[in-house]
Formats: sequence, C-alpha cells, structure tokens
Amino acid sequence: MPHLPPAQEEVALQFHQLCEHLMLPAVPANTVLGIEEGAGLPDAAFWWKERATCCKVRARRFGSQRQLVVVEPSSTAGVAVLKLKNLPVNSFSLEFLTELIINLEKLENDKTFRGIIITSDCPKAFSAGVDLREICGKNPAHYTEYWKVLQDLWLRLYLSNLVLISAINGPCAAGGCLIPLTSDYRILADNPKCLIGLNETRLGISAPFWFKDPLVNIIGHRASEHALQLGLLFPPAEALQVGIVDKVVPKDQVQSTALSVMTQWLAIPDHARQLTKNMIRKPTADLLVKHRDTDIQNFVSFISRDSIQKSLQMYLAKLKQNKD
Amino acid sequence: MPHLPPAQEEVALQFHQLCEHLMLPAVPANTVLGIEEGAGLPDAAFWWKERATCCKVRARRFGSQRQLVVVEPSSTAGVAVLKLKNLPVNSFSLEFLTELIINLEKLENDKTFRGIIITSDCPKAFSAGVDLREICGKNPAHYTEYWKVLQDLWLRLYLSNLVLISAINGPCAAGGCLIPLTSDYRILADNPKCLIGLNETRLGISAPFWFKDPLVNIIGHRASEHALQLGLLFPPAEALQVGIVDKVVPKDQVQSTALSVMTQWLAIPDHARQLTKNMIRKPTADLLVKHRDTDIQNFVSFISRDSIQKSLQMYLAKLKQNKD
Amino acid sequence: MPHLPPAQEEVALQFHQLCEHLMLPAVPANTVLGIEEGAGLPDAAFWWKERATCCKVRARRFGSQRQLVVVEPSSTAGVAVLKLKNLPVNSFSLEFLTELIINLEKLENDKTFRGIIITSDCPKAFSAGVDLREICGKNPAHYTEYWKVLQDLWLRLYLSNLVLISAINGPCAAGGCLIPLTSDYRILADNPKCLIGLNETRLGISAPFWFKDPLVNIIGHRASEHALQLGLLFPPAEALQVGIVDKVVPKDQVQSTALSVMTQWLAIPDHARQLTKNMIRKPTADLLVKHRDTDIQNFVSFISRDSIQKSLQMYLAKLKQNKD
Repeated sequence: MPHLPPAQEEVALQFHQLCEHLMLPAVPANTVLGIEEGAGLPDAAFWWKERATCCKVRARRFGSQRQLVVVEPSSTAGVAVLKLKNLPVNSFSLEFLTELIINLEKLENDKTFRGIIITSDCPKAFSAGVDLREICGKNPAHYTEYWKVLQDLWLRLYLSNLVLISAINGPCAAGGCLIPLTSDYRILADNPKCLIGLNETRLGISAPFWFKDPLVNIIGHRASEHALQLGLLFPPAEALQVGIVDKVVPKDQVQSTALSVMTQWLAIPDHARQLTKNMIRKPTADLLVKHRDTDIQNFVSFISRDSIQKSLQMYLAKLKQNKD
Repeated sequence: MPHLPPAQEEVALQFHQLCEHLMLPAVPANTVLGIEEGAGLPDAAFWWKERATCCKVRARRFGSQRQLVVVEPSSTAGVAVLKLKNLPVNSFSLEFLTELIINLEKLENDKTFRGIIITSDCPKAFSAGVDLREICGKNPAHYTEYWKVLQDLWLRLYLSNLVLISAINGPCAAGGCLIPLTSDYRILADNPKCLIGLNETRLGISAPFWFKDPLVNIIGHRASEHALQLGLLFPPAEALQVGIVDKVVPKDQVQSTALSVMTQWLAIPDHARQLTKNMIRKPTADLLVKHRDTDIQNFVSFISRDSIQKSLQMYLAKLKQNKD
Repeated sequence: MPHLPPAQEEVALQFHQLCEHLMLPAVPANTVLGIEEGAGLPDAAFWWKERATCCKVRARRFGSQRQLVVVEPSSTAGVAVLKLKNLPVNSFSLEFLTELIINLEKLENDKTFRGIIITSDCPKAFSAGVDLREICGKNPAHYTEYWKVLQDLWLRLYLSNLVLISAINGPCAAGGCLIPLTSDYRILADNPKCLIGLNETRLGISAPFWFKDPLVNIIGHRASEHALQLGLLFPPAEALQVGIVDKVVPKDQVQSTALSVMTQWLAIPDHARQLTKNMIRKPTADLLVKHRDTDIQNFVSFISRDSIQKSLQMYLAKLKQNKD
C-alpha cells in the first residue's frame, strides 16, 4: 500500500495545473508521476535508457533543455544518485520542486531502487531553499499552490520507503534544510563555507512547524528552541556536535561516504526497515497531514501582507543589483 | 493579540482579592497590571522615572516600604534587569509572586523593552521556591489562590514575548527553578554552593507536571526521569553537562555575560523570534492551561491532608528553632 | 490504588487458562498473584522461608522441579535480587513470562521490599527475548495469549512502584531488552560479548511501538530511529555513549554496583518517588493500554502469515541443526 495516494493525486493535479499555467499540453497523470503499472524493470541499465528518454520528453514539455534534477544509477546496485542542478543555488522554484517530486515518485515506484543519495550539482550551494520570486508579486492562488507542493515534497521524503541519504556538499540554509531534515542520514562536507541551519528568524520570518518538528526529532527540544529562535547556521564541527548532521568528511569524500553508509542500510531487509521507519515517523507526518490546510492559509495570509511583500521586493531588488 | 488575556484578568482579580484581604483600597485593573493604553514611552530614562513613582505607590499600597522586586534599566538599550529581593532567600510568598507578576506584565507591555535579565539581590540564594508559610496552616481558599498565582507566573514567563535570561547567582532549588526553567537562556555562577535542581522528592513531595515538562524539554526525558526521581541538585559543572543551564561563568561575570548573550538574542527581529518561540512552547503551555484546574484541585487536596500539614509544621518549627 | 487491577485480573485469568491448558489444578487468583491480604511480613528471613515453600508448590504445579525465576533477598534491607534462569538464554517462553510476572506481583505487593535488582543466572545471556517456539506452529489463540502476557510484563515493570535496576551481565537482544528498557537504571557488564539493542529489523521483523517508545524516552528520537532501522546492537562503550545503559562496569562488579546504586535510590521517600515516576511514565504506558488490543491483532495477523511461519520454521530447524 503506498503511503500517500491522495498526495500523489494532488501532485498530479498540480502538475496539470502547472502545465495549463505554462500553456503546455497536459500528459496522463501516471506518466507524469512515473507510475508505470506492472513495472519491474529488468535492470538499472534499462531503466537508465528509459529515463533518459523520459527526461528529454520532460525537457521539451517544460519548453527548455534545462534539466533541474539529474538522476543517475550509482556504482552500487539499487542505489540512485539524485543531483540537484537548479543553478545557481538550487533555490526551490515551482518548476524545480515539481521535477524533484516527479523523480522521487518515479524512484519510489521503481522496484529496481532501494535507496537514493541526494546531492547538489551546483558548485555554490546544496540548497538555498524557497525561491523568493515564487512568493513575491504573485497572487494568493499561486502562493497556495507553491506551499502545497513544498508540503508534498516534505511528505514524499519524510515517509519514503527508500533509504534517503543527504550528501550535503555545500551551504544549506532555511528551506534548503528540507531534504536533509527528512533524510535518514546526513553527511556534511568539512568546509567552513558549508553552513547548515534554519536561519529563518534572521530573515524576519518563522520556519513552519513541519521544519521545527523533524529538527526537534533530530537535535532535541532545547537545541531546536535555541537554534530556531537565533536562526543559527552551524559550521561543520558544530553541526556534528549538535547532531543536525551525522557525519562530517572532506568534501571530496562526501559521495563515497554516502555510498558506504548506504551499504550498511541496505544490509537490512527492506520490509522490516520500512515498517520501523514508518512507525517512528508517522506521528510527526500526521501532524502535517492534519494541519496542512490551516498551514497553507497561515502562510498565504502572512505572505500576502503588504509589509511582507514590500520587504521581499526590496530584498529581491537588492539581490538583483548585487548581481548587475 | 496578547497571549494570556484570561490569565491577566485572573491576576487582576487575585490582586484585587489580595487588596481586599489586606484591607487596602483597590486600584483599577489596568493600573495594577501596568497596562497603560497608548503607551509608547519615549525612552528608558522617562520610563525609569515613571516606574520609580509607581513603585512608591505600590510600596504604600502593600503597607510597607519593602520592595521585593527591583527593576532597573541596564546599560544595553531595551534590556531591563529584574532583581529579586525577598530576603533572605527569595522564597515565593504570595506578596512576592504578585509583585513579580505585576513587574513582568509591566515590562511585557512596555514597548521600550525587548529583554529581561532576572537575577537575585539576596546574597544567600537565587530562589528557594515555594514559601512554606503560604501552604501551611492556611485554608483551602488560600492554597487555591496561591497555586493559581504560581501557575500565572509560569505562564507569564514561559510564553513571554521578551527575551528572558536567568542570571543565576546563587543556589536555586525546587520551585526556585521556575524562573530558570521558563527562561530562554540560563547562566549559572561557577561556585560549589550554586546548586540547581528539582529536589522535591527529597522533601517528600513531587514536582508538578508543569515543572517536569520544561525540564524534559531542556534536558530530555531520561535525564529528567533520573533527576526528578532522585531529587538531584546539580553543582555547576554537572548542571552544564546535563544541560539544565547553558553557560557557567565566575560569579562576578554572571551579569555581564547575561548582557552579552542578550545582545545576540536582540540581533534577531522580535516578531520572527516571538512567532518561533510561541510555536515551540505553546504545546507545553497548553497542557498547563488545559489542566490547571485539576492541578489546583490535586495540589489543594494534597496539601490539606493532616499528615502533610503536620510534617510541614514540624519542618517550619525546626527552621525557626535553627534561626533562634 | 494499585496501577493495574484489570491487568492483574488478566494475568490471573491467563494463569488459570495456562493451568487448564496444562491440565493442572487451578489455585485461587490471589494466591497465584501473591496478593496476601493483610500481609506485612515481619522480615526478609521470614519472607524467604515462605517463598521457598511457595516455589516448591509452583514447581510441582508446573509439573517440573525447574525453577525459571529465583528470588533472593539481598544484603541490603528491602532489596530483592531476581535471577532469570531459563536456560540456556532466558528466552521468553510463556511459562517463564508467567513465572516472572507472578514473582514481580508478589514483590510489588510485599511491603518488605522497596527495590528489585534483575539479573541473569544463565552464563550465556541476559535475555534473548521472544521464544520463537511460542510464535511458530501454534494457533492464533496461543499467539494472542502470548502477546498479552508480554504486554502485561511490560506494564508491570514500566509502572512498578519499586525501584528496578537491571544488572545486565550478558548479551541482551531484541525482546530481551524489555526488562532493561522498563527499569529505572541499567548497568552493563564491560565485556565485548555483552551487546545490547533492538536488532529486530535484522531478523526481518519490526519492534513493537511499546519497545520504541521507552527507547525514545531513554536515548532520544534520532538515536532511536537510527538504532531501530539498522537493528543496532551496541557493545558496552557505545551503549554507554548512546545512553541505552547508565553505567558500564567489569562483569564481576555488576551486582555490587547495582546494590550501591540502589542505596542512592532508596534514600528517597517511596511515596514522592513513586508519584514522580508515575507522572513521567504514565503517558507512555497509556499508549500501550489504549492500543493493546489493536497491537495484539496486528501481531497475531502478522505472525500467522504463511510466509512468516515458513521462515520461522526454517530458522528454528537451522538452530536445532546447529545444536545437534
């Protein structure tokens, strides 16, 4: 039984809405979501060819050759490497989030794969989180859709049946922590630039409760209260000490360490591990499922305020100016 | 929207009852609670003058020149220092608790202030907690009122919008931990006499659940179970290791360290920090709000038992004898 | 008011059913449960004689001279030592569980005793947990009864009014952790063979939520998620570091350390300590009480599956082969 059939339907629906929004031809939901019935693909090589075709299709569909999420089979059987490539800093545009969810659904439903290593293919960052352009100067319907997709990504990752390992090879701030916080294991590159943390308060906003909850689960209540109120970004040694990551290794060993840790996790029978993971995580996930509509309303009403929109506009103008 | 309008009303009511009890003229509720409408005082100097007058008024009101809680503006703008001065050991008399709550309400509603450092002005202790004379030889109505005011203090502190830092410059036992446990940050003087902990079981009683809950939030479930069952009082190094305090510094640096930590906290925009603090703490506070009547009933019925009253009387007689 | 009157009734009922099952004469429930009314035995010596008689009676009743649980008074007044002696590895047969619960009830209701040290009298292990012969090749009624008795043991231990210290002098895996996880304090022998942990996933199964909950209470959410998914067995140093045990000492000092720790716990007035323990543990215990029927149904339906039964049979055949 899949964990999130309603959420899957929503993703499909949102994807269709997105297609319409972008005036692109809609495709059947099960193609979009990568749910091939009676799948059981013979091997990773076959899957890889099939996927390449699919990506070209999607690239066309999005009206660009740009591929924001690259999936590669690893040297270890059953393990896919998912590379985030939304230059320059993997900020969460709606397009990027959608492509990410599609790829995750695909891997989740492909019996060939048992684990995913998620890493960045942008030299500058693991992820900068929310793309401010998605929450500035748009309408409430857009904000609603955006926040829903972000929640979908969280649910997809947090309750994934696959083993998820974050290979954090760059800075990872605010919403960018969504992937590490929902993974099973976190490896951080030992580089002073590789800060990690929920620094929302420093930007004048508050992290949503579904970021706070997994943080509390990982580093405990007191450390979370402290880190969240002060918007702390931890350098590697402190990140390890507070427990927001499980391992710190030199940057060029992040990937290989992720693979060797993955091997330990794959030594455990999938079914038993999945039941156990679900038992531990379901109460936390249920809180989001139960309160997601209220949470969307809160977000939309907050972000639609004139004062917030004005400061976002100023902030974006400043960012643009710095670039020019 | 203020957090605790019903609790504020209760405090006002209790204060009026207290006035009646002491046969003093009652004053309008908003004066008592320090809620001046349209406040926005120009600066700390002005506030300080205004406060001095107010304190004289209250001192008269209580029929004594003794001031149990002294509020001073600190060298840092926006930071008040609240000095507990209920000699000899800042035990929680009803008068002291009421004066403390009034001062906290006042600061909470005064836009001039963003943070409070709470410290002791008694050489012998930070606080010894519950004043046994309040729970011995009185009637159930008195015990009910007393416990309610203690709960009010907890709620006022735990959900305060201000940054609260406990500068713990003396021993701090049992109920005396109420202020540190509900603060945002705890600094303890590095002196072997400066023990801190919930040692209720050693006195033959059990700490209420609303002391247990923040302790679990701060030091975790296992350490709390251990510390509470054994009534452990931690010396500074152990207090730091178990996490019941955040920092240990030489006694003469407690105050200056508190100010420098406060500066870090004030670097964060108030609104974002307050939202975040409330998000993390509300579930714990809600438990007290929901169960406070039952908790009062339990306390009153427990403390009214003949056996408990007898042992309290013996204990107090012993304390008095030791003094003489 | 005793904590678990319905559970006690169930144990009595189950014991009677067990007697009937074994075609032995039933005995009155209060004898079985060791609840002598107006007890107040004069001293441990008397109790010890009385107990010896009772054990012989039970040994006859079970149709064997084999005594699976040996209770001895310790050198410290008020402390019983409970030795698990179900050779070779203290696996939880229904007979062993029943005898264990009976002895625990007996001690719980005997005012002579305030604390129990639980240790193993099998050289090979502290406990190997569930006896696979009880959950393989039997019928659903048997599985139901077995799981209920296991839950009863958990509830009896977790909410015990006595101080429980586990003196873990051998390996302790999976269900074998039930006793340590529900104790007040855990001491592990410093021997590389003395592994401790919930390794269920390695056996292809998932630990029940009422093993997960106390583990989370003891070592925190993140460490539990990690340990449970990977089925980690911790050697002594790691066990201490992660916090699944409180102390590691040389094997020949486990017993004496348990006694000296017990002395610290007995310095606390019983009533206050019991109230405190109950306040902290009740929410966790309530989850099992509330969901125990569903949990039994889940277990019985899982264990009754053909695939599970087949793999258990193969596993047992293999174990038998290794012995021959």
